[in-house]
Amino acid sequence: MSLSPDSFAPIIGFGTRVRKSPFFDATRRYGAKAFTVYNHMYMPLWYEDPTADYWKLVNDVTLWDVSAQRQVEITGPDAAKFVQYLTPRRLTECAVGQCKYVLLTDENGGLINDPVLLKLGENHFWLSLADSDVLLWTKAIAAHTEMDVHITEPDVSPLQLQGPHAFDVMVTLVGDWPGNLGYFWFQEHDLDGIPLVISRTGWSGQRGFEIYLRDGSMGDLLWERIMEAGRAFGIAPAAPSQIERIEAGMLSYATDMTLENNPFEINLGKLCDLDMQADFMGKEALKRIKQEGVQQRLVGLEVGGGPMIEFNADHWRIMDGEEPVGVVTSSVYSPRLDKNLALGYVSVGCSDAGTELGMEAPWGLAPCTVSPLPFLKPNRKS
Amino acid sequence: MSLSPDSFAPIIGFGTRVRKSPFFDATRRYGAKAFTVYNHMYMPLWYEDPTADYWKLVNDVTLWDVSAQRQVEITGPDAAKFVQYLTPRRLTECAVGQCKYVLLTDENGGLINDPVLLKLGENHFWLSLADSDVLLWTKAIAAHTEMDVHITEPDVSPLQLQGPHAFDVMVTLVGDWPGNLGYFWFQEHDLDGIPLVISRTGWSGQRGFEIYLRDGSMGDLLWERIMEAGRAFGIAPAAPSQIERIEAGMLSYATDMTLENNPFEINLGKLCDLDMQADFMGKEALKRIKQEGVQQRLVGLEVGGGPMIEFNADHWRIMDGEEPVGVVTSSVYSPRLDKNLALGYVSVGCSDAGTELGMEAPWGLAPCTVSPLPFLKPNRKS
Repeated sequence: MSLSPDSFAPIIGFGTRVRKSPFFDATRRYGAKAFTVYNHMYMPLWYEDPTADYWKLVNDVTLWDVSAQRQVEITGPDAAKFVQYLTPRRLTECAVGQCKYVLLTDENGGLINDPVLLKLGENHFWLSLADSDVLLWTKAIAAHTEMDVHITEPDVSPLQLQGPHAFDVMVTLVGDWPGNLGYFWFQEHDLDGIPLVISRTGWSGQRGFEIYLRDGSMGDLLWERIMEAGRAFGIAPAAPSQIERIEAGMLSYATDMTLENNPFEINLGKLCDLDMQADFMGKEALKRIKQEGVQQRLVGLEVGGGPMIEFNADHWRIMDGEEPVGVVTSSVYSPRLDKNLALGYVSVGCSDAGTELGMEAPWGLAPCTVSPLPFLKPNRKS
Repeated sequence: MSLSPDSFAPIIGFGTRVRKSPFFDATRRYGAKAFTVYNHMYMPLWYEDPTADYWKLVNDVTLWDVSAQRQVEITGPDAAKFVQYLTPRRLTECAVGQCKYVLLTDENGGLINDPVLLKLGENHFWLSLADSDVLLWTKAIAAHTEMDVHITEPDVSPLQLQGPHAFDVMVTLVGDWPGNLGYFWFQEHDLDGIPLVISRTGWSGQRGFEIYLRDGSMGDLLWERIMEAGRAFGIAPAAPSQIERIEAGMLSYATDMTLENNPFEINLGKLCDLDMQADFMGKEALKRIKQEGVQQRLVGLEVGGGPMIEFNADHWRIMDGEEPVGVVTSSVYSPRLDKNLALGYVSVGCSDAGTELGMEAPWGLAPCTVSPLPFLKPNRKS
């Protein structure tokens, strides 16, 4: 979002077309100042301001309403086979209780979504979604294949607890066991009657957990229980931080990748097991793309000039001299690095680290240099 | 959206995840004060305020940016067969140049979307969409059936020109021919190099047109051309009016109907030709639903008490004495009728016109009476 006062002005209209999270009232009560719509649901963007919220995330601990990460639940005798059919990532090694970051691809290898998969049982899965109607995508596939599956959007609403003190808060809330929870593993938990799934995951480079509420009527109760547990550790309400996630080189679906991109363009070919025996959407297309190679690649860019006061709300062009060679998808000023950072696509010929390019910002052409990702090494160790 | 000052506060964040309409800059320039997100695109909600914009719509003429009504384009040898497969409405009589309001249903008869279909050629169609990812729905079906179709989201962005003076503005803009355009027919038009499709359709009870821009780079040019043509007729920028569309009994997908509802619950069984030979999604389920009958039905409600100062941002319960019998999906104060109006679902036993019920509003229980729809007869004659 833009940080310029001009763009601050327009308000968001609240109505019944867009869904409210079980934590919506709490986020209003705690002073959420900006919202967006994500998976047809209102989602807070920041409270104090994006930079102040960022400092709380990297220094203390923050609680985010990310209920808009809706779940698609897949059950039935063929659920495991069906889920494998949705993604090029091999899932044979995924254990019950484990999470996997997966790419969903269409018949051309285009990116449909990049959810976190939770395996709750041998034939019981959740896809914790980015912003696209995977419910419609999967229902249409299920209705036209022989696989015997049942697909729903269950009453499951995630929160994220992220920051250096996330473990302290979680142990205060539920006891010691989260200390033994491996990265990308989860456990079911009953918090005095509040049914939860708690995973050691999150959309930040910090330590953290996702807390999946399985009863939407208990949203306010859960929110306040976590705030109470976090008080001693300086917990603050916040939201996914554009600043911190770009520092950590984490991609945002629909922002940094769309249906027009494929896994190789975003440097995630390693999540595509094209030799596996199982069939999956886009298998042949991805083999062809891998063989032919891609024309553009997502890269990190360090951008010169003074601190950027706006996030880019448009796809600024990236120039190699006079020649347009790509576009910026995300950009931000990093207070910790005291540098302007960007993510974007450039033609492969310009994608090597160290390549000097230019970014067409509204305030003029800014010099930029292709940089390895992440810009800042995540620190998720407990 | 709520009209209470409290809910006015939160702003909408602008970024690159949500798309911008080709008219986005124009709508900001013309003072759009509130936005929502619809089909992953920013859409203005009002300019002066919802009531002032409404009076411009019903008295004069208004221009709306509804680019968020994205198009799904279906071409290829089996396009006609494929489109028929998506909807229970018989399309054999749909001529090239004609529009049809269609319901898209899933395998259970649930509502996927309720687009306007435009038939541009024997095997060339647009679905002008409400708010759900029909692109993913249709692509998944196409990838798993034998039908030979090509599905894309083309560079097509609609405006709506609605109000008593819509014909005057259109004739000033393009000449006399729109006067001979039948309701729900369209024609292609080149406006001094701006490629358009102009249909006599729109989401209001007023006279009007939809103007489909086929080159996103010309958004600002087209917007200003229409504003210039409308100046003499008091044109104003506006947006889909919740007040006027409820008066006209027009439904909003995701607001008044969802995947959980079927065509019979919204009283549109007449758009389901269950005897047609062609197969379509949900055919067997809809036959079963029609035979068994529905448990709830969408109705109009006249609500007592003083003028409502807010639209409902929640699904207020509808009570029959102590018994909850349904929920409100939309509600508004109608300045022309000087009545509070609502749309909602009630159990069939309570759905007859004249039935006296109660609406649980935040300010207390308001008496309401089931009323025939529309509340106000549309006036779309030229």
